[in-house]
Amino acid sequence: MILVNGHPAETVDALDRGLAYGDGVFRTLRTQAGQPLWWRDHYAKLAKDCAALMLACPDEAGLRAEVCRVAGAGEGVVKIVITRGSGARGYAPPQDPVCSRIVLAAPLPAYARPDAPVDIVARWCALRMARQPRLAGIKHLNRLENVLARAEWDDPAIIEGLLCDDSGAVIGGVMSNLLIAKAGALFTPDLGQCGVAGVARTRLLRAMARRGVPLHIGRLLPDAILAADEVMICNSVIGVRRVCRLDDVTWTPAGWALLLNDALNEDVD
Amino acid sequence: MILVNGHPAETVDALDRGLAYGDGVFRTLRTQAGQPLWWRDHYAKLAKDCAALMLACPDEAGLRAEVCRVAGAGEGVVKIVITRGSGARGYAPPQDPVCSRIVLAAPLPAYARPDAPVDIVARWCALRMARQPRLAGIKHLNRLENVLARAEWDDPAIIEGLLCDDSGAVIGGVMSNLLIAKAGALFTPDLGQCGVAGVARTRLLRAMARRGVPLHIGRLLPDAILAADEVMICNSVIGVRRVCRLDDVTWTPAGWALLLNDALNEDVD
Repeated sequence: MILVNGHPAETVDALDRGLAYGDGVFRTLRTQAGQPLWWRDHYAKLAKDCAALMLACPDEAGLRAEVCRVAGAGEGVVKIVITRGSGARGYAPPQDPVCSRIVLAAPLPAYARPDAPVDIVARWCALRMARQPRLAGIKHLNRLENVLARAEWDDPAIIEGLLCDDSGAVIGGVMSNLLIAKAGALFTPDLGQCGVAGVARTRLLRAMARRGVPLHIGRLLPDAILAADEVMICNSVIGVRRVCRLDDVTWTPAGWALLLNDALNEDVD
Repeated sequence: MILVNGHPAETVDALDRGLAYGDGVFRTLRTQAGQPLWWRDHYAKLAKDCAALMLACPDEAGLRAEVCRVAGAGEGVVKIVITRGSGARGYAPPQDPVCSRIVLAAPLPAYARPDAPVDIVARWCALRMARQPRLAGIKHLNRLENVLARAEWDDPAIIEGLLCDDSGAVIGGVMSNLLIAKAGALFTPDLGQCGVAGVARTRLLRAMARRGVPLHIGRLLPDAILAADEVMICNSVIGVRRVCRLDDVTWTPAGWALLLNDALNEDVD
């Protein structure tokens, strides 16, 4: 089921600026028994991303009701798209835009289903991400880099590709954030120049701070990934997953992914 | 009038990847008496951009017929959007995508109408463009940088904003390419890292080569713009326009814009 501005629909206005320019933001969240997981964090992130692009964020209660309306009874995914709405041709944002709101349900992807392998096989992507601090961290609709990076492989056994920016720093996965453990501490890339600062990452940062686990946000080079005790990716659909293989490099479990998954799902926020 | 995949429609599939990820390309061209101007160049550029993103380019004759079908009798603009079509959620391109094709007509923008001032007032934008060689030159649907840059001003007297990349090199206008004249030669920014290589620019490069006018494509810094004999912008809707003022700097005509406009419209290709 798809709701467009609150009404069941299969289509959106052909003049929507989301289509014309990718002028909008989105969220992908997991649902269980018709309820969104981590809703407070997802709404907070949506509001932050909307503010960064000067978009009006929908009312929280109304949006949550729409998420519940489209969500299936079991486990699934709901996607929320907010665009700057329809407008005349031209880049200039309309003076008083009426944002479009698209809420749709989708099944869990194969790699997130209960019968899928828990650990993840990953690869390095050749594409280098451009650095644009004005858009960094935001889950906006300009995602051609992700599309091109994901198009680099079609082996279904490979779940994720890791990306560096054009300075050589590791940024994260095509669809996930990256964390590594080394000598009792956690490290995750700084996303001030590019990448998406996802909700799972935010929850982990908070949970690790609460537990007093040292966590460093900074510049990580590929060598640091290869030298890690454990390499993990995270997002709102798969939670935390251990990378058991990255191209030719393999790791045995060091226990961090289990710890982080527990922390991720703590419902204390 | 809007044609979606050849049929009159007001809407597109809510699951279109053009909306989800900006996964597509577009063209904006001028029409006169129901016919597209510079069609051969526009189609060639569309085909090139489609190839760069691994999209199937529509058949030329059929697409041209659609352009003519939507074009009004007088002067106007037609926009063509090609996306990777609808797909399941997720960045991975579908194995056999069926591209979407949206062809729509729009009136000439105010600054392109015959009664608008011929010369253009411009400003510098604060936003710095990110450098992504994989997407440079392509008129793709990831245009948030243009939207944010265009949102920097709302004075209707200012028609264009000039943009630099994050290395400080001038790239062009928000909606146009840039050329400057200095000491009998023309210069235009290299677009190997970012920016859109438009059809008007391509036609000018070809025409100047034909006429033996020296034209250099390279790195241009803001100081070179300010020191130019004439500063010009070009695109398929406005042709070549002289910049008479750029923030506080003004220029008197040096004759180049007239020469280039003539060359641009030569129908020898």
